[in-house]
Amino acid sequence: MDYSTLIYWAELVGVAVFAITGALAAQGKRMDILGVVVLAIVTALGGGTIRDITLNAHPVGWVVNNTYLWTAIISAVVAFLTCRYFLYPRRTMLVLDAAGLALFAILGAEKAMGLGVAPVIIVMMACITGCAGGMIRDILTREIPLILHRDGELYATCAILGAIFYVVFHGVIDERLLAISAMLIIFFSRLAAVFGNLCLPEFIVTGHKLESPEEARDR
Amino acid sequence: MDYSTLIYWAELVGVAVFAITGALAAQGKRMDILGVVVLAIVTALGGGTIRDITLNAHPVGWVVNNTYLWTAIISAVVAFLTCRYFLYPRRTMLVLDAAGLALFAILGAEKAMGLGVAPVIIVMMACITGCAGGMIRDILTREIPLILHRDGELYATCAILGAIFYVVFHGVIDERLLAISAMLIIFFSRLAAVFGNLCLPEFIVTGHKLESPEEARDR
Amino acid sequence: MDYSTLIYWAELVGVAVFAITGALAAQGKRMDILGVVVLAIVTALGGGTIRDITLNAHPVGWVVNNTYLWTAIISAVVAFLTCRYFLYPRRTMLVLDAAGLALFAILGAEKAMGLGVAPVIIVMMACITGCAGGMIRDILTREIPLILHRDGELYATCAILGAIFYVVFHGVIDERLLAISAMLIIFFSRLAAVFGNLCLPEFIVTGHKLESPEEARDR
Repeated sequence: MDYSTLIYWAELVGVAVFAITGALAAQGKRMDILGVVVLAIVTALGGGTIRDITLNAHPVGWVVNNTYLWTAIISAVVAFLTCRYFLYPRRTMLVLDAAGLALFAILGAEKAMGLGVAPVIIVMMACITGCAGGMIRDILTREIPLILHRDGELYATCAILGAIFYVVFHGVIDERLLAISAMLIIFFSRLAAVFGNLCLPEFIVTGHKLESPEEARDR
Repeated sequence: MDYSTLIYWAELVGVAVFAITGALAAQGKRMDILGVVVLAIVTALGGGTIRDITLNAHPVGWVVNNTYLWTAIISAVVAFLTCRYFLYPRRTMLVLDAAGLALFAILGAEKAMGLGVAPVIIVMMACITGCAGGMIRDILTREIPLILHRDGELYATCAILGAIFYVVFHGVIDERLLAISAMLIIFFSRLAAVFGNLCLPEFIVTGHKLESPEEARDR
Repeated sequence: MDYSTLIYWAELVGVAVFAITGALAAQGKRMDILGVVVLAIVTALGGGTIRDITLNAHPVGWVVNNTYLWTAIISAVVAFLTCRYFLYPRRTMLVLDAAGLALFAILGAEKAMGLGVAPVIIVMMACITGCAGGMIRDILTREIPLILHRDGELYATCAILGAIFYVVFHGVIDERLLAISAMLIIFFSRLAAVFGNLCLPEFIVTGHKLESPEEARDR
């Protein structure tokens, strides 16, 4: 199996894992099977779609190759049917999700770099590819997106770290080695964050607490 | 009146009906007239906009022909002014909304098919054209989108049914007859769902209920 | 300093102010520094991005010139660090925000006019450029967007007023004078609204209150 075939299969696994995390987010929200499929599609394909539309990199990947869409739909239906009887193992899901984040973020960075945008945009696109789908999933289930707040362990931060490594060492070391190293950085920093409970500092607004909500709202 | 003129007028009626359902969603949310107009525009034009942007089918319809935008704005203002004094008849609104869904979904499918995308993408675009506007309306009014959860009768499912019929029989029967048949399938299946209380099965996660919310959140 | 340099610097100040208002919206939401930066970027750059994507006016501004993105990121980090110890003066922020709204709305109108779209689309694009970023900020922090409801003083309305002035007098008076006059109209009408508590009429649905929530939900 050559490198690009390997990446393609890894992508499909990533889509399936993201789709299942999307489907499981429907838990406790009284959703039906269609809602579960929509959440799965949005989680798995949303980030790449936003990246491609913003960078005008048409056609969007899943529009051309519908295997991605089918993978997301079938994963969601399987999750819908099986998770009445079967407990998805938490640790395995977290490890697979970390792998999906690593893969998607660096593939997003590669695509952005191929379009010749500035380094800061590349890092941002890596972050969008890996995290934006999950953000829309959270908005649809009426949660404040998990990656924005303090309850979650480092997630987007890991994608940013790996993308910065990718941008800094681009041209210095071999392309494939670079991509795989950057993915490993994301994967292991995410695992370290999950199992070591690493979080970012919280946003505290001391003075503002003295103001009334009506005043604060206008800012 | 020829076929394309008929479709055009039907589209404007569809925009007006969707705009009014958008405006009525402002109920109980303490919105002002601008909020009502924004909700109306988003509900009426949001789905087609997302479809066109994702498929790179520029220019977006309402950007070229501003009659659509005016129809949405005027419908919203009329709804704003009249619904203080006047009760919009629930059944009539539901029937008109079902007609709008049928029309928009199949017009979306026709547009996607004209761009030569795969069948599964055509069905997805039919669904987006008919339902995405209502989803954004629900997000803006801070509801979990109605079509995702179990309280609503079949809605997107009807659009999917009609679109699958459209895709399967395309090339087999006459183009116009096909489009109208597919629309009728959506229209009557939606009416059957509303008046027969048809719903999709709910998403139930047996095992996961045993976990703490903190654990469940990370999935 | 010539006119275009002046506009460019004013734009960067506008981005910084919008980014800070985005960052301050994280207050009381238990967000971390990354969440604050995301809110800042979305608030500062979201409106222009939606405008450019809808009008197919690629490349999006901040993708080409990454100074905008850096300005938003640095402003957010500074706000994150300083607002633990320092109270952002409410009146100054409101005045700067009004200036940002005026600038962004009219620059949005200019861009739309350059693309030759209809007057109503120009006004809508002015409104999107000035207000859509703040709407996404509110969705991400799980609020009903402020500009849609009655608690806020006139905001989008001021942008609409200025944009209508811009469209009506285009070709009649000098281009630059027109742009600056339209900006001043937005700026002062927003200040008048804030300090005079001007609001739009609320949406009231008399008859509908008699219905059950289940019935009302379907409309």
